[in-house]
Amino acid sequence: MQSKPINLGIVGVGKIVQDQHLPSIRSNSDFHLLATASRNGVVPGVAAYKTIEAMVAAEPELHAVALCMPPQYRFAAAQVALQHGLHVLLEKPPGATVSEVNELVALANGKGLSLYATWHSRHGSAVSVAKQRLASSVVQSVKLTWKEDVRKWHPGQDWIWQAGGLGVFDPGINGLSILTDVLSESMFVSSAHLEFPENRAAPIAASINFISASGKRIPAEFDWRQTGDEVWDIEFITSDGLIKISHGGGSLSVDGQLVELPESSEYCEYQAIYARFSELIQQAQSDVDLRPLQLVADAFMLAERSTVAAFTG
Amino acid sequence: MQSKPINLGIVGVGKIVQDQHLPSIRSNSDFHLLATASRNGVVPGVAAYKTIEAMVAAEPELHAVALCMPPQYRFAAAQVALQHGLHVLLEKPPGATVSEVNELVALANGKGLSLYATWHSRHGSAVSVAKQRLASSVVQSVKLTWKEDVRKWHPGQDWIWQAGGLGVFDPGINGLSILTDVLSESMFVSSAHLEFPENRAAPIAASINFISASGKRIPAEFDWRQTGDEVWDIEFITSDGLIKISHGGGSLSVDGQLVELPESSEYCEYQAIYARFSELIQQAQSDVDLRPLQLVADAFMLAERSTVAAFTG
Repeated sequence: MQSKPINLGIVGVGKIVQDQHLPSIRSNSDFHLLATASRNGVVPGVAAYKTIEAMVAAEPELHAVALCMPPQYRFAAAQVALQHGLHVLLEKPPGATVSEVNELVALANGKGLSLYATWHSRHGSAVSVAKQRLASSVVQSVKLTWKEDVRKWHPGQDWIWQAGGLGVFDPGINGLSILTDVLSESMFVSSAHLEFPENRAAPIAASINFISASGKRIPAEFDWRQTGDEVWDIEFITSDGLIKISHGGGSLSVDGQLVELPESSEYCEYQAIYARFSELIQQAQSDVDLRPLQLVADAFMLAERSTVAAFTG
Repeated sequence: MQSKPINLGIVGVGKIVQDQHLPSIRSNSDFHLLATASRNGVVPGVAAYKTIEAMVAAEPELHAVALCMPPQYRFAAAQVALQHGLHVLLEKPPGATVSEVNELVALANGKGLSLYATWHSRHGSAVSVAKQRLASSVVQSVKLTWKEDVRKWHPGQDWIWQAGGLGVFDPGINGLSILTDVLSESMFVSSAHLEFPENRAAPIAASINFISASGKRIPAEFDWRQTGDEVWDIEFITSDGLIKISHGGGSLSVDGQLVELPESSEYCEYQAIYARFSELIQQAQSDVDLRPLQLVADAFMLAERSTVAAFTG
């Protein structure tokens, strides 16, 4: 990296920024956190603004921003940033719609800026190892299960239940980001069933039947009503046995035997994200894979719907 | 065109094939209708099969197919056709999901075959004239209204109400296909509200607020509960007055004065489609614009939903 670090602004200082972005940025000398823009959150010792417009007006030394607000507000902020000549990192999901992210890609390309749609779960320590194993196996069938207790993982997050918040697909898209990365062929939605609480705009559970380009059926279950431990698993029955990615990309087993993975810190996913963002900026490239969001949009378009009991947080 | 015509098979012989495809194919000497595949429909004097698999097995002289069945069944048929080395024309909408059509594009490109996602309303006689006028005007605001009586236009079409049938977007996507063609900038879904009859899987009405790349708001109303005359209008308030596309692309007015359009037959849209398909095959090119379907998928993903009175056909 050049001796001068990339001056970074964070927009939307919430839980994921405090837990993951800040330690990852602090551990990467390529970046210097120059400012934040957030309605409520601040980072001690860092210039704080209420809006991205105020931040970019007051901080001409900014090079890049990380957009970590809810997805419904990401597009407008990304437009402002790109129009000010800033490189942009998008938290997942990269936007509220696929069309708007396609527009950001065109805008970034036109200005020679880097746009990076991150999928943090792809950097879990099991993912690249699983991908290698799957590439040398014949995959016979695949099953995805993504179940967690929404009260435990998203307490008080109202935006996640609002239109555009994706509901159970907010975590579920992590599973899809892993599966689209490790599977060696394309996959599509064949049928879907979504369950909407009667008092919410977003689904609390979903069953999707995906199908792969070669015709493999891939059933997937997403549920936020899980109690007890979360289940974030993808199982592949292969010529080399049952390859299972668990803990959202954090562990891997073959026929029930845990596979030893490289040592990793609790910040490894976001450390990898910031290493990649630095690389993209140096190489003047973008990295925007919309397949996980496209599959979710397709599921909404193709789904049967049912209304289920009200959810109270 | 070469002296030998393109041997064509039609899959899914329903109303649109009888009304539009057959007269357009008969009037175009580039094509020879060799066979059909359909559960029920037949064309007198043309070899008839029940399935595309049976048709391609029995008719080695086929060059191309037009896939006119409901969108939920289009992808599997297109895979069969492309794998047999046939050029493919897709009725609108091109598929039940965006991801599956992206896969068809990759498959067609890999095999050097032409894939053509048709949008018949783009060939209405008003559309290219309107596009020229809009290109030389400053557009201030846009409004889309697509209202028709489903009982009149889709009697007995059960598939249209099923998951993947798109409901009111089956006609509404025609309006979006025109608007995305004539508007000189990108547009995205900003918010959406869908109304689902309590006994149906697809919406009977929708309100969408689109927004353009430059920030123009584009309200759009879709409704299948219209009685009396249909309204298929797009209105542009511009520096040159109110430019209005009406009758689904069939007429154009400026400040209430009808603009004279080139003479056109009742088959002009589909004649243009088959002329274009012939051209694409000769040039070994594809033409797949997924923006209208992407906007619909995005609307489903981002929408608020409400349940309305049951619909009985």
